[in-house]
Amino acid sequence: MTASFKDCANAVRALAMDAVEAANSGHPGMPMGMADVATVLFHDYLKYDAADPHWPDRDRFVLSAGHGSMLLYASLYLSGYARPTLEDIKNFRQVGSPCAGHPENFELPGVECTTGPLGQGLAMAVGMAMAERHLNAVYDDSIVDHRTWVIAGDGCLMEGINHEAIGLAGHLKLGRLNVFWDDNDITIDGKVSLSSSEDIPARYAATGWHVVECDGHDEASIKAAIDAALADDRPSLIRCKTVIGKGAPTKSGTSGVHGSPLGAEEIAGAREALGWNHPPFVIPDDVRETWLAAGKRGGEANVAWQGRLASHSDKGEFERRMAGDLPDGFSLDDYVAELLADPKKVATRKASEMALGAINDLLPETIGGSADLTGSNNTKTKSTGPLTAEDYAGRYVYYGIREFGMAAAMNGMALHGGVIPYGGTFLVFSDYCRPAIRLSALQHCRVVYVMTHDSIGLGEDGPTHQPIEHVMSLRLVPNLEVWRPCDTIETAEAWQASLEKKDGPSLLALSRQNLPQLRASGGMQAAKGGYRLHAAEAPRRLVLIATGSEVELAVAVREQLEGEGIGADVVSMPCWERFDAQPEGYRADILPSDVLRVSIEAGTTMGWERYTGLDGMRFGLDSFGASGPALRLFEHFGLTAEAIVPQIIERLNA
Amino acid sequence: MTASFKDCANAVRALAMDAVEAANSGHPGMPMGMADVATVLFHDYLKYDAADPHWPDRDRFVLSAGHGSMLLYASLYLSGYARPTLEDIKNFRQVGSPCAGHPENFELPGVECTTGPLGQGLAMAVGMAMAERHLNAVYDDSIVDHRTWVIAGDGCLMEGINHEAIGLAGHLKLGRLNVFWDDNDITIDGKVSLSSSEDIPARYAATGWHVVECDGHDEASIKAAIDAALADDRPSLIRCKTVIGKGAPTKSGTSGVHGSPLGAEEIAGAREALGWNHPPFVIPDDVRETWLAAGKRGGEANVAWQGRLASHSDKGEFERRMAGDLPDGFSLDDYVAELLADPKKVATRKASEMALGAINDLLPETIGGSADLTGSNNTKTKSTGPLTAEDYAGRYVYYGIREFGMAAAMNGMALHGGVIPYGGTFLVFSDYCRPAIRLSALQHCRVVYVMTHDSIGLGEDGPTHQPIEHVMSLRLVPNLEVWRPCDTIETAEAWQASLEKKDGPSLLALSRQNLPQLRASGGMQAAKGGYRLHAAEAPRRLVLIATGSEVELAVAVREQLEGEGIGADVVSMPCWERFDAQPEGYRADILPSDVLRVSIEAGTTMGWERYTGLDGMRFGLDSFGASGPALRLFEHFGLTAEAIVPQIIERLNA
Repeated sequence: MTASFKDCANAVRALAMDAVEAANSGHPGMPMGMADVATVLFHDYLKYDAADPHWPDRDRFVLSAGHGSMLLYASLYLSGYARPTLEDIKNFRQVGSPCAGHPENFELPGVECTTGPLGQGLAMAVGMAMAERHLNAVYDDSIVDHRTWVIAGDGCLMEGINHEAIGLAGHLKLGRLNVFWDDNDITIDGKVSLSSSEDIPARYAATGWHVVECDGHDEASIKAAIDAALADDRPSLIRCKTVIGKGAPTKSGTSGVHGSPLGAEEIAGAREALGWNHPPFVIPDDVRETWLAAGKRGGEANVAWQGRLASHSDKGEFERRMAGDLPDGFSLDDYVAELLADPKKVATRKASEMALGAINDLLPETIGGSADLTGSNNTKTKSTGPLTAEDYAGRYVYYGIREFGMAAAMNGMALHGGVIPYGGTFLVFSDYCRPAIRLSALQHCRVVYVMTHDSIGLGEDGPTHQPIEHVMSLRLVPNLEVWRPCDTIETAEAWQASLEKKDGPSLLALSRQNLPQLRASGGMQAAKGGYRLHAAEAPRRLVLIATGSEVELAVAVREQLEGEGIGADVVSMPCWERFDAQPEGYRADILPSDVLRVSIEAGTTMGWERYTGLDGMRFGLDSFGASGPALRLFEHFGLTAEAIVPQIIERLNA
Repeated sequence: MTASFKDCANAVRALAMDAVEAANSGHPGMPMGMADVATVLFHDYLKYDAADPHWPDRDRFVLSAGHGSMLLYASLYLSGYARPTLEDIKNFRQVGSPCAGHPENFELPGVECTTGPLGQGLAMAVGMAMAERHLNAVYDDSIVDHRTWVIAGDGCLMEGINHEAIGLAGHLKLGRLNVFWDDNDITIDGKVSLSSSEDIPARYAATGWHVVECDGHDEASIKAAIDAALADDRPSLIRCKTVIGKGAPTKSGTSGVHGSPLGAEEIAGAREALGWNHPPFVIPDDVRETWLAAGKRGGEANVAWQGRLASHSDKGEFERRMAGDLPDGFSLDDYVAELLADPKKVATRKASEMALGAINDLLPETIGGSADLTGSNNTKTKSTGPLTAEDYAGRYVYYGIREFGMAAAMNGMALHGGVIPYGGTFLVFSDYCRPAIRLSALQHCRVVYVMTHDSIGLGEDGPTHQPIEHVMSLRLVPNLEVWRPCDTIETAEAWQASLEKKDGPSLLALSRQNLPQLRASGGMQAAKGGYRLHAAEAPRRLVLIATGSEVELAVAVREQLEGEGIGADVVSMPCWERFDAQPEGYRADILPSDVLRVSIEAGTTMGWERYTGLDGMRFGLDSFGASGPALRLFEHFGLTAEAIVPQIIERLNA
């Protein structure tokens, strides 16, 4: 027996309010408000197969308003995904349940991305839609032909990143991206009108979007709006007029229903108002069967798709790329061998471009880009033509002055799969990307951040453009590998390691200024994170630990010290996270505790105690920088061999 | 003799191209493109008195496109500001010159704010315009009656923060804010059309702005547009169609003129094309005199204003506030005395609200707010009614879901002077504000960030909402004081210290969960940054160092250890920056190196080596969090006395 649309939607409402009540924590208002829209989507439009959540050609659904996670968990459960189970939902927001407070892509296959930090879900969806169009252009309609759907709230639309994301989507004419705006007039502080007077549809229209409206509680109206969206070749904003907490007798339509359990009495009233006479967590058979049938809708299409894939000429390559595997035998050894034969003194940003030249030829899955600093970030190579609305097969994105939007879009591309995104800006503007960098790490996204101009070495642009705290602060982000290579060889090794890291992001901090090639051999030594570049010749009295452009300085310091008969190792430490993962014996050999340990890095010294100990020395910069030529700045801030060597000798003699 | 408008504008162009050429670094394109607009502004509209750059009722001018710094330096020099001198301009971008690569408010009085990080200048201007309207409402037209002018480029408009900033300005109907958009069709990567297809005027109109257009090289057209802007009571966007690098014979109108010296040949051609036949850095007398006259235009108005102020009934209070001084005898001692008499177990976010209750009654200059988390950040008190378009005298801003926009607006308010802004969001979303927090610090702005939900102690919202790396990463920002108080008393002390710090921002990391009142005495002990909360009773074998909610845990650990006869100090360390500024003797007394030092903080452990040494112990959390009730999470991550005590005993016995 087929249940009514109303009952199917009310099942979502009931699970949401009951799970929040059981957890005594959570957000019932949004799921209750958007239950009708979600039901229409999951029953009639979304292309998915609950039995195969990893089907590559499924539509992507992003709950950008992640606090409404129960909307997603209820829909996944009801439509027959293996997880979450009803038990999982009963344990909503408990340690061990995959039904976390906000949706986590690593907890449940049906969760396409981690949301909650507002605005980023929609921005990631833009990246997913870009990946879809790109892969469609590279392959064809027969194996890549799906849509990206988003539910977003006023929070997502008010965040700055919304402007960047929709600007990119409008410019790239991502017509297969459809965003439901849960227009309920409510934010946490109260009415939207408390803080905003914007004409959102007009703003979207001004940004190249198609806008359509519906009554978010009327099945026919929702369908008509979706049909209009499908018929338009621009990205669509579907404005859904809804009542937050729909069904709650006294709290619906108010901010009181947003983020707190309704309470027993209100829930009883809601059950009555909704005509839902079932105990908590009980779904009547007809409702469950109707939902399960919806979850099987895509099964046949999936089978047909499998058939088309089986006979597709690019099957192997498509599967490799969607699995995220690099081609067999991928390596930069040939390129490194060339460097060893013919050393280059170039900025590491240039070294990155050179490495990318080899990489982009070897890996068709890379998609590069820059937030309007292409020539400075050196992110474009000859094999990557522009990805545009006219040519989605291109592999280079002109992201515009949209650092955060770029980072979030790259997350979306990585989550979609089939591509490996990298993108650049100045390191100091990693601050603009930081919320998305964190989500790269949390979501295990292989995204490579190409962050150039990584210290006062950028010179005249001055303090606003000179990173001080950035490298260290990025090292603090869990699951992010931060690289600061010292020359062409280390840069190549950092790139190789970053590409091989399937389960998380990497960030390359690269110099503006030229650096000598310090390495005389290959062998992926940088992959250990830190290693002895030069061993002491005189009896060892200290270890100099440096990164990036300061390895050259450490080598110069060592030379002077050795000249005085003071033996010094130079340790290059391009990646702390990798070094910390080495066995204790290795680490103790590289950083012995019985000699003076000295760090040199043109950034904050705080944090270096980790390797120098409190009795070591730390050379760096704990204030903001200044405007001037790079060499003058290194002098000004005491980062020269002339300034450092006497201090070390004084310490050794103390 | 009065020079022609054309010559006056060309003087700006010449200084820009010559200074960039001399520095062999910089951005000639924008100053050359916007020279006409700047000349109209400085000669006919901007209310300023070059002889008195600090005149409180001056118009504020913000060069949001900060890379075009030479436009500003040239205008300030030509109009007769004491600095920059011609010599300063000749030393553009050299160490020691106030003419830094990007404008720095602390280098030159005529520079209202530090710009370069795109989008933030305009967003700060919104804050300046808010402060102006607020002070106008508090005082009156006779002493507060000025405008805020902005020059912004496509970069500023494409950044996400632009959406937040103009949304706030449109909502608050800041009609005295006028933004010139340098519409030159060029970004660094090439044509704007490479990355954007947006209808900017339509977007601004949708956001409550008045939009007017002009030919940015035609004096009459510019004036007509400004006149239209002045006549409208909405904030205005003045679209100026310009040619980037106007005058450069081969490079104008291309991205090639944006960020590099033109070269001798191109400069010669530009001189010819512009009809500017003077050697580098030579300004003919008539041009200089005409500019100097413009710089004196405001002199009479300034004198008249001084007269009105002298007879104003609120003169003393207005001057106190504009000087940024707190009222004589300001202190929270009475409030702290109440707490000592009647201890409270509350979350530190609640303790902050309680302290703010006292503060907001004592300090009429505070303007609070929250990015749509008022009830969670506890930022509103009874004496702060909403600041709205209908009542600018209000002292509480509903910023909406605009964390970055809020932070930048607060910088603008602080820079304007007369108010002390504070605002809240969740600590994890400090990432969204981070670029503006950095500018608070760089610009020496007294802004207080109220960042609540400061650890896994927030519980069920899960990893997206749980700060891990945030407190430590914020400690790395130069000139920012980060506070993580442990109870009501420390929270009050942190507030007092933050308000007393005139020359920089403070950030309060506050708990969601309740915490006992641990302090039994007042005395601003927290102002030392770290202090001994409890001394060992048994012979001291270790020092426990903790912050915020983990001080309670450290006290519990100590109690168990003392029960075993193991003496342990508890050091509360609410502010690292303050502790590091104490004399060495004090620091050595608090953190003696001859006993085990153990840190406990529910965040990243990296960085704590600074106080524990490598032989100490660090308890914390170096992975992302999880979704569950707070107490369960502390258990899950081993942050309980039961988990910690045995490890310490084992270490002591090793």
